[in-house]
Amino acid sequence: MTAIRIGIVGYGNLGRGVEIAVSLQEDMELVGVFTRRDPAAVDTVHERTPVHPMDALESMRGELDVLVLCGGSKTDLPEQTPVLAERFTVVDSFDTHARIPEHFAKVDAVARGAGTTAIISTGWDPGLFSINRVYGESILPAGSTYTFWGRGLSQGHSDALRRIDGVAAAVQYTIPSQEAIDRVRAGERPELTNRDKHTRECFVVLQDGADAEAVRQAIVTMPHYFEPFETSVTFLSAEELAQDHQSMPHGGFVIRSAESSPGTTQTIEYHLQEDSNPEFTASVVVAYARAAARMAAAGQHGAWTPFDVAPGLLSPKSPEQLRAELL
Amino acid sequence: MTAIRIGIVGYGNLGRGVEIAVSLQEDMELVGVFTRRDPAAVDTVHERTPVHPMDALESMRGELDVLVLCGGSKTDLPEQTPVLAERFTVVDSFDTHARIPEHFAKVDAVARGAGTTAIISTGWDPGLFSINRVYGESILPAGSTYTFWGRGLSQGHSDALRRIDGVAAAVQYTIPSQEAIDRVRAGERPELTNRDKHTRECFVVLQDGADAEAVRQAIVTMPHYFEPFETSVTFLSAEELAQDHQSMPHGGFVIRSAESSPGTTQTIEYHLQEDSNPEFTASVVVAYARAAARMAAAGQHGAWTPFDVAPGLLSPKSPEQLRAELL
Repeated sequence: MTAIRIGIVGYGNLGRGVEIAVSLQEDMELVGVFTRRDPAAVDTVHERTPVHPMDALESMRGELDVLVLCGGSKTDLPEQTPVLAERFTVVDSFDTHARIPEHFAKVDAVARGAGTTAIISTGWDPGLFSINRVYGESILPAGSTYTFWGRGLSQGHSDALRRIDGVAAAVQYTIPSQEAIDRVRAGERPELTNRDKHTRECFVVLQDGADAEAVRQAIVTMPHYFEPFETSVTFLSAEELAQDHQSMPHGGFVIRSAESSPGTTQTIEYHLQEDSNPEFTASVVVAYARAAARMAAAGQHGAWTPFDVAPGLLSPKSPEQLRAELL
Repeated sequence: MTAIRIGIVGYGNLGRGVEIAVSLQEDMELVGVFTRRDPAAVDTVHERTPVHPMDALESMRGELDVLVLCGGSKTDLPEQTPVLAERFTVVDSFDTHARIPEHFAKVDAVARGAGTTAIISTGWDPGLFSINRVYGESILPAGSTYTFWGRGLSQGHSDALRRIDGVAAAVQYTIPSQEAIDRVRAGERPELTNRDKHTRECFVVLQDGADAEAVRQAIVTMPHYFEPFETSVTFLSAEELAQDHQSMPHGGFVIRSAESSPGTTQTIEYHLQEDSNPEFTASVVVAYARAAARMAAAGQHGAWTPFDVAPGLLSPKSPEQLRAELL
């Protein structure tokens, strides 16, 4: 079997995760990282990983099977995915839910025209969570689907804390409500708002001389971000923050609760518990890179999402092996 | 949209479940039940459901899009699926894991030759559990997959109890070990045998004059079935058995526990909690009937398994709708 040759485009937390994830896949080979920064200034996880300037992509086209696009969804991917899909098989983890149809249409038009294959919005939400929402409502039409996020570090809420006067540094964890989960598991099918489903834990380092009580009030009354939620605020030292809050855990639950006939409850629960959100996301994206290589080889051109990818395409094993070993 | 016209072949617990499940799917229409028994003697869930003799299938071929085969895996399906795949699009829930490759090969040869589509081994195990085993090891190669069954009624173990001298009636529940699940969830990745993962609960009605202690001994020392397991035996009256043990709950867990990098644990947990095993299995099989109709329409002939079916094919929604609403 010839190895699938992977290029990483963009090198932040996700790119680092992809570098590690590719090294665990026996049928893949990492060609290198492609960056807009000065390649000499990029410090990769593995010393052996080559780093190239972005404009080397064109000349290395014959050495690459799939590009894994690791830029952000706000400005990088809306621009990069369509441009690169013109000449490469690509996967991305575009995760701005509301703008997925628009992103899909742009990438699809380019990929169909160019005869390439692009899988967008891989990752866990969108991605694995989305798949489970589809399986759940397709199999059990008479019910409700619940998504809970966490326990996980929320980048957006941490940023909101850091903008408050008197805050030197901070992180925020989103915590799923155990009570709400228990009610869903029990088959109650309650109406739940985002607020009913989650609480928020803030860990805050104060600036010198800041008034702790004023900061706490500013946090718990902040509209949209914290006011609607049960929010706890813990003050700690910069050293404690550095020591205990550097990892980026995340995860959550997708639960389908439904009746197959009156009074007969069926529950499908999908639960992710991630020590590292970027490494987990990267692991998913890399498995979809394998599917993209196969779909490209099979002539399935255009844009696709995890909904269009059969589970077996993610595995390095042959269909025969999968049927014998895992069915 | 034209409704998908479904025929049910074989009418036991699974067939009844399919009858109910089809009624919940807005894009499906139940043409009828086909049985080897006297149709007049078959008592369907819904009075309106037509019941036909098996040999009416041939003349009704133009009225049927997909046959859902509801026979048993031991003798019915190995014979019926290949025969019916010669003229119909079919789905089955063949669940004898060790014989799947052989069953697949037979059905595939027939379906390719005839230009039909067959999806075999749908259901939850094999089926949804199998898919989750594939997603888990494909995404997180450096880890272990654990399957726990239950809490659920085991037909085979209940039958074994009923064969013991002095037992008038009995049911057996397989219980997943909470301690083992907790260790897996904690990322320990222990080596676990089937015995470590499950305990067994027996509910037994004694024959008149039977010696309870002798029966208990016969149960807990029965090789393979009970001796290797922590087994509890509760004696009860025929009335209590009839009142409290008529439902057929089942379910279980597939847990992938892995490291994405040294010391960074990632856990994917899939959990089913079924009030009724036959109704849940039927719900899965019926969603795959939709996929079979679509794959047949797209000219994807031959035999397939849940590994080959993209999640979106199970949903009545269009790809555009799925991307906008569920991704």
